[in-house]
Amino acid sequence: MAHTLVITPEQFLAAWQGHRTLTRRTIAAFPDDKLFSYSVGGMRPFSDLANEMLSMAVPTLKGVVTGTWTKFEDAKAATKEEILARWDKDTGTINTLFAQIPAARWQEVDTAFGQWKMPIYDLMNYVVDNEIHHRGQGYVFLRALGIEPPPFYER
Amino acid sequence: MAHTLVITPEQFLAAWQGHRTLTRRTIAAFPDDKLFSYSVGGMRPFSDLANEMLSMAVPTLKGVVTGTWTKFEDAKAATKEEILARWDKDTGTINTLFAQIPAARWQEVDTAFGQWKMPIYDLMNYVVDNEIHHRGQGYVFLRALGIEPPPFYER
Repeated sequence: MAHTLVITPEQFLAAWQGHRTLTRRTIAAFPDDKLFSYSVGGMRPFSDLANEMLSMAVPTLKGVVTGTWTKFEDAKAATKEEILARWDKDTGTINTLFAQIPAARWQEVDTAFGQWKMPIYDLMNYVVDNEIHHRGQGYVFLRALGIEPPPFYER
Repeated sequence: MAHTLVITPEQFLAAWQGHRTLTRRTIAAFPDDKLFSYSVGGMRPFSDLANEMLSMAVPTLKGVVTGTWTKFEDAKAATKEEILARWDKDTGTINTLFAQIPAARWQEVDTAFGQWKMPIYDLMNYVVDNEIHHRGQGYVFLRALGIEPPPFYER
């Protein structure tokens, strides 16, 4: 049956990588020490939020592509250099894995990491939305540090 | 030509309204005065961010549905009660307008508000992403005020 084309997988990937480019600039905007030590209101520092994004992106895609889920594990990049290196490595891995998502997969329901049951399109949205959510928090940390964050509309 | 079904318009709408429900709870979590007076790092208070969301949601959908764009105008709800009332009114308007988006429209390129040229799927993503971004900032304001924000995964 014909259905409305909202967005293609290629367009979804481009939008996500655009967000990832902006998030990378946000990570890079933090002074090395503040990335790991500073936060507002007792929150986790932005290094923890960036590690969470790394924990989600490639491991989620691996489960989406293979249907096999590992246990969810927190990434533990311990320096700004390590976070950015892992970020850049994952950029290529994401492109490779994304191209392997079977067409029918987007509308299937699966239990991500054996814990979170939802349709794959919803899961992929969650990964991107979580990144946007936490990056927005990083913007506040930067502002509180007197640092201008990168423009939101630049991807 | 057959193409991959990533997400249907109905699923896109449900995801957006889920975000809007969470944003409404975030607005409601602010004490009335702090909503309009408090921020971190010299940023706009959350009332301004919520008004920006209101300025974007229905006016963008009107342009998407009709192809006619008004000038972009900031919403100016001046109390928490007004913001929440406009929010709830817009929930119904969004459902009504969304159902009127022509199927071919998502992949068309248009110049939103006479200023921002992009495909409609990208524009619709931008409206949702901007809400997630600013809501994440509101979470930091709430934390700094000693208030627990609503759980991100509850929609």
